[in-house]
Amino acid sequence: MTEIRPILWENGSLKLLDQTQLPKSETVIEVTGYHGAISAIRDMQVRGAPAIGITAAYGVAMAARDIRVDSRADFMTQLRGVAAEIESARPTAVNLQWAVRRMLAVAEAEPDPTRLPQALLAEASRIQEEDETVNRRMGNAGQGLIPEGGSVLTHCNAGALATAAYGTAVGVIRAAWESGKRFDVFNTETRPFLQGARLTAWEFHRLGIPSQLIVDSAAGMLMQQGRIGCVITGADRIAANGDTANKIGTYSLAVLARENGIPFYIAAPVSTIDLSLPDGAGIEIEQRSPDEVTHFQGEPTAPDGVEALNPAFDVTPHRYIEAVVTENGVCRPPYLESLKLAAG
Amino acid sequence: MTEIRPILWENGSLKLLDQTQLPKSETVIEVTGYHGAISAIRDMQVRGAPAIGITAAYGVAMAARDIRVDSRADFMTQLRGVAAEIESARPTAVNLQWAVRRMLAVAEAEPDPTRLPQALLAEASRIQEEDETVNRRMGNAGQGLIPEGGSVLTHCNAGALATAAYGTAVGVIRAAWESGKRFDVFNTETRPFLQGARLTAWEFHRLGIPSQLIVDSAAGMLMQQGRIGCVITGADRIAANGDTANKIGTYSLAVLARENGIPFYIAAPVSTIDLSLPDGAGIEIEQRSPDEVTHFQGEPTAPDGVEALNPAFDVTPHRYIEAVVTENGVCRPPYLESLKLAAG
Repeated sequence: MTEIRPILWENGSLKLLDQTQLPKSETVIEVTGYHGAISAIRDMQVRGAPAIGITAAYGVAMAARDIRVDSRADFMTQLRGVAAEIESARPTAVNLQWAVRRMLAVAEAEPDPTRLPQALLAEASRIQEEDETVNRRMGNAGQGLIPEGGSVLTHCNAGALATAAYGTAVGVIRAAWESGKRFDVFNTETRPFLQGARLTAWEFHRLGIPSQLIVDSAAGMLMQQGRIGCVITGADRIAANGDTANKIGTYSLAVLARENGIPFYIAAPVSTIDLSLPDGAGIEIEQRSPDEVTHFQGEPTAPDGVEALNPAFDVTPHRYIEAVVTENGVCRPPYLESLKLAAG
Repeated sequence: MTEIRPILWENGSLKLLDQTQLPKSETVIEVTGYHGAISAIRDMQVRGAPAIGITAAYGVAMAARDIRVDSRADFMTQLRGVAAEIESARPTAVNLQWAVRRMLAVAEAEPDPTRLPQALLAEASRIQEEDETVNRRMGNAGQGLIPEGGSVLTHCNAGALATAAYGTAVGVIRAAWESGKRFDVFNTETRPFLQGARLTAWEFHRLGIPSQLIVDSAAGMLMQQGRIGCVITGADRIAANGDTANKIGTYSLAVLARENGIPFYIAAPVSTIDLSLPDGAGIEIEQRSPDEVTHFQGEPTAPDGVEALNPAFDVTPHRYIEAVVTENGVCRPPYLESLKLAAG
């Protein structure tokens, strides 16, 4: 089976597997400039914190290539403007900011203006390659959390499609499966965007890992019945104390897991840890269009004129989180220490 | 505004507002025999515990009208066969059983076989009329639970469409609103069948009660943020100890409410109380077709070959339930006593 890699840099442009079209069709869109990168992120053709970061990095690289100015100072001014634009494409995932700032740091460190575009492209490529390595290390670090003969639930898509390859939470499940263990896998459909039904179920299917799809609100019942041994999700931003922003519904799963004595895990690269935030209260939660709730693939599901709220993420307080799996090992409470050490 | 009445008996046949077609179209289907009543229940053209009970009662009446036998004994044998068939249309809502048994009791008490069809039709009509009265009493009994300036969340559809008219949980909200109080109303979309988006939002819209629609998994976040003052849902079956079966996701809302110090209420007629069951463990939970999860209005949402689980209900243990609103008053723990008293 070919590895799923949703982002490719090829012949001077970015090729993205359009995640709004899966599983119906495997459409690849071509992005040739940073504006295209921003709209692909905003429209969720590419999504998932690490994948957004990689796309943003290539966005900065493409912008650098296209900037036509005489002085290095002018170049940097323009690049910083572009960087701010890209950073604001979506507010919650810190990897976007992290990747853009890493790109800016490379630009600042390169004294020769003629070498800047090449240096930035190399850095974007490095961010992408590192992400796959990081995910495989995360898988190894976390796979012991999923016991032979047990069962695991995941939410949204924290798989290859959310990253360069391999995935974070799905990567941990996959590493456990590839180690030879066998267990039941459940995944939520994840309304309103159906990342679970459309993307995660598609990945498990391609990986040959049998999984069962449920509506989001059925997770509690399965936990109550003892059918879920642990829960593992990805993350969009982790504050210094371990409070974690992730796809809407993650908080509910964490509360239900705690109520039923089930461990709840997060899997995320250290680039998702935001040590600048003491806790989750400072995480900006993206409010997306109500149309995503009142419509389904363009068809209205609710009567005309009905109002809807569409928060895209929620924040799970650290006290519900049993462990955070990173590429540098499994962090346990107190997170103020363990996350700092891992991010070190 | 005309009252919403989803079930009408007119010119010798049953007219049902087809709830699979709302809100797109207000299609009325005509049911002329008991087989039609069974399929309307099974296919969820009519749904909601009280509405299923009423439809089943008319089903028994239509069957009685159509039975052609010589002796009263043969009539009763046939009617009991029909009753068993109707009772098995859907397993979880006890009102179905309750209504069918009430119809059988009338048949058994009527010595004159020529008067049986008429007596049964009169009883079905009585069950329907009583339901509206019961709901208005429930509204009055429960409306004090919703405070002026507060907020309330409901799940699935426990409105007029789930009953003869007025609704149970939505009836309580409506009674509070009609008493002049103002508060925020939230309702979940309720996957997979979208009763919340399609039916409850439609009802609130028609009633002129501003409501906000959310995906099921956003309820926890709103509770965490202090935006939900109380939760009220209907019920499909309440065991003697207060354990309550209701639409999948209800258990999750109850746990999240408890975790956030928010009262969680059930509103249901005493016909939903099943004193024969000591607790919720004995409630049969309907498993519906996985296609409802893997497809949306006929369109696949998940890749071909993906397995899905589709439990239609879950059971909320009584310890999460602050009160059960019935037409005979608000029952509080210990439910073993208060429910018995209410069911009188």
